[in-house]
Amino acid sequence: MGIYAFPMHKIPIGVLGASGYAGRELLALIGRHPAMTLAFAAAGTRRGERAEIGDRVITFAATEDAPLGDAALIFSALPHGESAAWVGSARAAGAKVVDLSSDLRPGAGLPGAAAVPYGLTEVARDAVRGADVVANPGCYATAALLALAPLAARGLIAPGATVTINAASGVTGAGFTPRRDLLFAEVAEDFRAYALGNTHRHASEIRAVLASFGSDADLIFTPHLLPVARGILATILVPVTGLPRDVLAPWREQYAGEPFIEITEEAPSLRDVTRRNVMRLTARPVAGVRQPMLQVVAAIDNLMKGAAGQAMQNANLVLGLEETMGLPA
Amino acid sequence: MGIYAFPMHKIPIGVLGASGYAGRELLALIGRHPAMTLAFAAAGTRRGERAEIGDRVITFAATEDAPLGDAALIFSALPHGESAAWVGSARAAGAKVVDLSSDLRPGAGLPGAAAVPYGLTEVARDAVRGADVVANPGCYATAALLALAPLAARGLIAPGATVTINAASGVTGAGFTPRRDLLFAEVAEDFRAYALGNTHRHASEIRAVLASFGSDADLIFTPHLLPVARGILATILVPVTGLPRDVLAPWREQYAGEPFIEITEEAPSLRDVTRRNVMRLTARPVAGVRQPMLQVVAAIDNLMKGAAGQAMQNANLVLGLEETMGLPA
Amino acid sequence: MGIYAFPMHKIPIGVLGASGYAGRELLALIGRHPAMTLAFAAAGTRRGERAEIGDRVITFAATEDAPLGDAALIFSALPHGESAAWVGSARAAGAKVVDLSSDLRPGAGLPGAAAVPYGLTEVARDAVRGADVVANPGCYATAALLALAPLAARGLIAPGATVTINAASGVTGAGFTPRRDLLFAEVAEDFRAYALGNTHRHASEIRAVLASFGSDADLIFTPHLLPVARGILATILVPVTGLPRDVLAPWREQYAGEPFIEITEEAPSLRDVTRRNVMRLTARPVAGVRQPMLQVVAAIDNLMKGAAGQAMQNANLVLGLEETMGLPA
Amino acid sequence: MGIYAFPMHKIPIGVLGASGYAGRELLALIGRHPAMTLAFAAAGTRRGERAEIGDRVITFAATEDAPLGDAALIFSALPHGESAAWVGSARAAGAKVVDLSSDLRPGAGLPGAAAVPYGLTEVARDAVRGADVVANPGCYATAALLALAPLAARGLIAPGATVTINAASGVTGAGFTPRRDLLFAEVAEDFRAYALGNTHRHASEIRAVLASFGSDADLIFTPHLLPVARGILATILVPVTGLPRDVLAPWREQYAGEPFIEITEEAPSLRDVTRRNVMRLTARPVAGVRQPMLQVVAAIDNLMKGAAGQAMQNANLVLGLEETMGLPA
Repeated sequence: MGIYAFPMHKIPIGVLGASGYAGRELLALIGRHPAMTLAFAAAGTRRGERAEIGDRVITFAATEDAPLGDAALIFSALPHGESAAWVGSARAAGAKVVDLSSDLRPGAGLPGAAAVPYGLTEVARDAVRGADVVANPGCYATAALLALAPLAARGLIAPGATVTINAASGVTGAGFTPRRDLLFAEVAEDFRAYALGNTHRHASEIRAVLASFGSDADLIFTPHLLPVARGILATILVPVTGLPRDVLAPWREQYAGEPFIEITEEAPSLRDVTRRNVMRLTARPVAGVRQPMLQVVAAIDNLMKGAAGQAMQNANLVLGLEETMGLPA
Repeated sequence: MGIYAFPMHKIPIGVLGASGYAGRELLALIGRHPAMTLAFAAAGTRRGERAEIGDRVITFAATEDAPLGDAALIFSALPHGESAAWVGSARAAGAKVVDLSSDLRPGAGLPGAAAVPYGLTEVARDAVRGADVVANPGCYATAALLALAPLAARGLIAPGATVTINAASGVTGAGFTPRRDLLFAEVAEDFRAYALGNTHRHASEIRAVLASFGSDADLIFTPHLLPVARGILATILVPVTGLPRDVLAPWREQYAGEPFIEITEEAPSLRDVTRRNVMRLTARPVAGVRQPMLQVVAAIDNLMKGAAGQAMQNANLVLGLEETMGLPA
Repeated sequence: MGIYAFPMHKIPIGVLGASGYAGRELLALIGRHPAMTLAFAAAGTRRGERAEIGDRVITFAATEDAPLGDAALIFSALPHGESAAWVGSARAAGAKVVDLSSDLRPGAGLPGAAAVPYGLTEVARDAVRGADVVANPGCYATAALLALAPLAARGLIAPGATVTINAASGVTGAGFTPRRDLLFAEVAEDFRAYALGNTHRHASEIRAVLASFGSDADLIFTPHLLPVARGILATILVPVTGLPRDVLAPWREQYAGEPFIEITEEAPSLRDVTRRNVMRLTARPVAGVRQPMLQVVAAIDNLMKGAAGQAMQNANLVLGLEETMGLPA
Repeated sequence: MGIYAFPMHKIPIGVLGASGYAGRELLALIGRHPAMTLAFAAAGTRRGERAEIGDRVITFAATEDAPLGDAALIFSALPHGESAAWVGSARAAGAKVVDLSSDLRPGAGLPGAAAVPYGLTEVARDAVRGADVVANPGCYATAALLALAPLAARGLIAPGATVTINAASGVTGAGFTPRRDLLFAEVAEDFRAYALGNTHRHASEIRAVLASFGSDADLIFTPHLLPVARGILATILVPVTGLPRDVLAPWREQYAGEPFIEITEEAPSLRDVTRRNVMRLTARPVAGVRQPMLQVVAAIDNLMKGAAGQAMQNANLVLGLEETMGLPA
């Protein structure tokens, strides 16, 4: 990382898709990061608008006017389907990229995605460290896969099992686009499941990554929309080859020393993790069933550990910085 | 019905446990019922307090001062464990009883419970009609069992299957007791699972009733606490012996003509059912899994179809009235 | 009203601007009205969309395709500035009109507005009864003016006084248009004043009507946006010529026997009035000030008494029906 | 400051009343403070309970077991009426005190209160700096008085004027005591005024301090309860001797360089200040009235600038530290 003379000079960072919820969270993190400085913040529909980021007021550039070459690293929070092309342009301009869209993730099916490391940081740290481009995991997928990885790694998921993931997300997960169904008066006092029948994009993402962990499990993922601004809670049932004596041992072992993972006896809730870059998790054996099963409950902030926070972990690694830099634990 | 000279004289109705959320909903329903009049409203801790019910102000009697003999029918919304004894006293005083506690439900284990019909009205109408005492189903159990009954009745639940029920309830489900964890500032912007590991009381209730439907399925029930006042959404996965050609046919057939059941193509949400005595339900085949499975999503208002409304259906039947009386559909 | 052979034939009613929050509330009221039937429901941007109204599914016609002549009475919930022209067309087609926009209200300044009665029903009942067109009051103005009318009628507002009205409204008051600032994640956990400096449209409406009551008071109106779906609470300070011995007497006298006005000792709150066509009000003398003053707190549901409910009171009067018909108190 | 060998040794700090909302906020601030360390955290009803503060788990001592002498400074967040006696004990044990209760504030009427500086930090910095005991202002009073101080200091409040303060607070302002009226299902979708008739404790506090600023204005304060967890918005009307040419000038001049005061053109809202130790304010001339008036809107977080944050500013001053230490702006 010799080219960045830290702390004399800060590393210039660009953000594409900066006006959405994940984009604004990225801007806030960059603003507090001791080794980064904002090179540009570009937005599509909200170009020209001003935004208050900490004690600074910025103006969003149009995406096509973004000075890609001014940034050493670019976060892309552009919409799915639009992002991949801009990743190419950013690379051509010499910038490294952390892509928060689904375009380059496993299961998305875009050509070339296979070559890009999937930035589930605690699991894929080494691959991320040397990468020029990182595919940042989806918010639901982050919660599900951090919960399942230790079981898969230990061969504890029963062969041929059906893993069921019920998850609920705050509305920032649906983005900052004005939509009638996201108005306060429609969301308050409501709760709904969506993408019924196992059809959500993250189902393929989780399945593809879980397969790469060596599990052949079937997977059913059902997302729900919560009347809260932020947070994801995933309640997961896993048929296992046997119950561990210490039910939390798989996670405690795998994540020992991890600054952004919290394993607790008590059930986690959204308030435990909101505005923090952590996953908090507990597990229990399931009573009253013939097949040994574990119930795992994981909570993250969808905009932090589920988006901007994990992206910052990955950016730090890509830039050769401390992974925790700029991220309050 | 001969003893009740309707409409000249209205039927006197008592409510025990009237100051809680279910109790107050019962009082409101009685107040609007064309053939009922309130004989008494008794409360434990809030005795002596006044409450506004529609355009009437009532004062809660102490439970032990309730004139049980003045009522032709008594709703008991007393806490679990306290209710059964009062049901006995009410019977001794000559009143019929709809008991909203779990004391007399299947799976609760109290002696004598087996002799009392389980008032899942659409399923057990005939048994309820002739009964002196009815055990009103739990709120979660109502949503789950109305969703599962048509599958069980058709032998569609795969033998040896594990049925998973994820459900989320508004906070009125936790009662009107002042508790720090139910304060607005603790519940807003939060979401949590509880009774982890399949340990909720309603799990045994659902299991016992499902067994009585002829299914040997294992059952995993996970409740969650929502930051909404009222409503339950249950998301259910059922391994099936085969997928029906018309996925909604089992429910449409079983519930044809039912005034309080709504089968829809679209996913139901809490807002569709709030303050209404209905269950709304949809189902989908589950994509991407080897075992044929159905996903069923059911929504009810926990205080109406999940408590006071269904209790009123049962009371109407017990009293020989039209089942829908006093219940706006 | 001999032309409507009630109950043999129901009166055909049209709704313009039917897809917004007030429009949908009107559709629900019409659906439950014993003497009305829906002739058409027209919408601008949402034409062709379907909506569930009670147990009926309707499709919105385009506004310009609305068969105005099929309706005996038309509710217009079109946007301010668009409505007046359609009122003319409706009249030309022979329909009577209750206009929920501000176009024909006092203080709005549109030519011809002066000839149209201002439908603050409890105050202007006689003028409404004989009218072909009624200007339905604004939601904030309804709360403020029903609160102030008894004081003005008794000459109790101090000459030259400054009346201050602080009011807060649920977000349905801002309409069903998709706007970023009305998204759940923006409104939840927030509260803001708007139209600062006494610049809200309803300030002129309230001032003009208050002047017609004979008061020369200055008036300061400050609206706020609440993180709730519906409801308005107005907190009003009125310098008075003297404190009444019974502080509630002016309202109790003026509104004696009114089915939709509730005068209470306790402070009203939104929950007391939500989904009900009532105004609930209390008043207190203000302690610790030299000038005698009254504090008046009034609560209404902005979509009911503040819009569709009062519009229905007015429509009933215009059509020669009982004012309370179709309106649960 | 010589006795505290910073940074070698951190200053030991105690908290009385640590288990309430303000107490927990104090614990979090102490945990992040570079020069402070927690000596003890005592609680009344919740003694013995454990709490997670940042990455540390603490156990609440009973108030009477608190080792007062171990702390160089003690924050008291004990209830009004109980705190003053403990302030005495803390002083006797040699600790300095910042008292968050109302016991020692102007207008509270307790003997001895007059000798204690009122810690409205931006206004009373010099008095606080040399004090052993500071009376920390009430949350509503902080918003109101920081808004009014620049007008009073410039003689801009019209003689004999009536200043009206309408304010709304999140429910943490009502404390962490379990009360039915603070349950989620009671507060959500509701809004209410309380302490009608100018009877709130903070009315006398604001009046007494405003008088000390040299204004003889009458004052009407009306608090409201918001369905949000935290935040206060105050909407204030002030009759003025004349309108300043630059309406924001009084505040911009008075608060120039203040790190915790933000003067903006736009109307502030709760979200602008939540979890931040700032007051944000704007002002507008009032249109359409004969008497020149200013409308001032001020927003604070009731637990930060309205309680723990301002208390920390005061503690820093009392201890001779930088006022901003441990307080993110």
